[in-house]
Amino acid sequence: MKNSKFLKIHNLNNICYLNNRFVPYRDASLHVSDIGLQRGYGIFDYFLEMDGRIPFLDDYLDRFFASAKLLNLEIPLTRELMKEKITFLLQQNKFGTSGIKLLLTGGYSEDLYSPSTPNFMILNLPVFKRPGEGETGRRGEGEKLLLLDYQRHLPEVKTTFYLPSIALLPLMKQKGAIEVLYHHNGLISETTRANFFLIKNGILITPVSGVLWGITRKHVLHVAKEIMPVEEREVKLEELWECDEAFITGTSKHVAPVVEVEGRMIGKGIPGEMTKMISKAYERYFKMQSA
Amino acid sequence: MKNSKFLKIHNLNNICYLNNRFVPYRDASLHVSDIGLQRGYGIFDYFLEMDGRIPFLDDYLDRFFASAKLLNLEIPLTRELMKEKITFLLQQNKFGTSGIKLLLTGGYSEDLYSPSTPNFMILNLPVFKRPGEGETGRRGEGEKLLLLDYQRHLPEVKTTFYLPSIALLPLMKQKGAIEVLYHHNGLISETTRANFFLIKNGILITPVSGVLWGITRKHVLHVAKEIMPVEEREVKLEELWECDEAFITGTSKHVAPVVEVEGRMIGKGIPGEMTKMISKAYERYFKMQSA
Repeated sequence: MKNSKFLKIHNLNNICYLNNRFVPYRDASLHVSDIGLQRGYGIFDYFLEMDGRIPFLDDYLDRFFASAKLLNLEIPLTRELMKEKITFLLQQNKFGTSGIKLLLTGGYSEDLYSPSTPNFMILNLPVFKRPGEGETGRRGEGEKLLLLDYQRHLPEVKTTFYLPSIALLPLMKQKGAIEVLYHHNGLISETTRANFFLIKNGILITPVSGVLWGITRKHVLHVAKEIMPVEEREVKLEELWECDEAFITGTSKHVAPVVEVEGRMIGKGIPGEMTKMISKAYERYFKMQSA
Repeated sequence: MKNSKFLKIHNLNNICYLNNRFVPYRDASLHVSDIGLQRGYGIFDYFLEMDGRIPFLDDYLDRFFASAKLLNLEIPLTRELMKEKITFLLQQNKFGTSGIKLLLTGGYSEDLYSPSTPNFMILNLPVFKRPGEGETGRRGEGEKLLLLDYQRHLPEVKTTFYLPSIALLPLMKQKGAIEVLYHHNGLISETTRANFFLIKNGILITPVSGVLWGITRKHVLHVAKEIMPVEEREVKLEELWECDEAFITGTSKHVAPVVEVEGRMIGKGIPGEMTKMISKAYERYFKMQSA
């Protein structure tokens, strides 16, 4: 009965790396005493394979190692060994296009609270359509966001805690929204799985505090600085309602125009011209970087 | 090599309930695609067995069912069946004194994000000394707390996200602190695993917003109302530094006097007389209720 839940996972023949071993993904399990499960003590990172190459891999690994350090979690592999394991997974699984997820938890715990030796895994999976993505068919028309009063704790650490926005999935589906935009004490920070940007009077503006240092954010800023003035600073929620254009950036999304937040139109309600310019410039840069 | 991590768990012969089956605890595992692990989408509750009886069991089950409802998670057992499974576990495991943990997650997830059929477990374990508890030998002298600027999201839901205070365990150990007291925007809410109370001019004061509805909190308030005036309201951080006495309440701790917060003395720096009075009254009440 329980196995019916596993049907699609069981049909995959891919392998993953779990605590020093390569195992079939369908057989990858952890004892329930893991405090990633029991207490949400875990970090991760996620990036994409494109034909065997991983754009910006070192950026993602930098962030993963930094997250681990900030939580006193020891990664059981050197960076070079981790790259070897990833390469082996991609060669064996042969997805061509796939997602790679690194996950590190506080380990098995006698008292279900205190960290021990971390559990570490590298998962390599097909790229699934994420909730919201493509479902509304809005990509060309721009995306809708919901608002949530929430500030992630230790925002620079990529922790596994996505409960606040997963709890909103039914509402997001109903409203056709792709992501949730977080604000707190009058300031905008980021969306569930993306960084947020707005454009006002020809200036590109993005929050600088309370955010995860997105890899796509970093490279989009690099590209955008050639095109227009850029301000990384505190961004007030009111600025959202008065901006000319807005977009979000992420590993899978690249640059995605935003046309509506919490039912209110952003700018002219269509993808902005400057956003399109930045998106095109980023796509050119991305192709060059990942060539 | 990996098994060495499991040594103590493997030495236990207790069973647990996992997704409709009783299994040895040492064999209880979940596939890594569970979004309790991947995305922190999980709730739990925890209570104690004393010689086969569970004080306030219905209060804990009320809270667990309410937590599940608020996150759109379906508990796969009726309340009566859950009680039967718990009773069977206690009879089989024969700990005499033990902890019972209910854990419900969003289930296995294809895309490691969207909830599916929940995974549900009932764990029954010996009562471990929790980090900080007893280590400082301070129980008679009163407890020390650290401060953290943090507000739990959906505070009325008992989510599994304890990362903010687990990250502080090394510092807590160094300072001899048993818990972390959360405050945000100038207001006190609760500690990691307990509710917070202070006494000023003979009035018992406890935060009313941003807190988990502790079962011990509820019964301590019931008892205290017979002894002194009680105010459930917003509590400012400044009030902490000016109070006469303070204590925390929890399932394992009952009433625990607080004598120091973030290195600053609370009241006279010794367990307060009114706190002792409330503690004694609660212990009498607790014995009667659980008789």
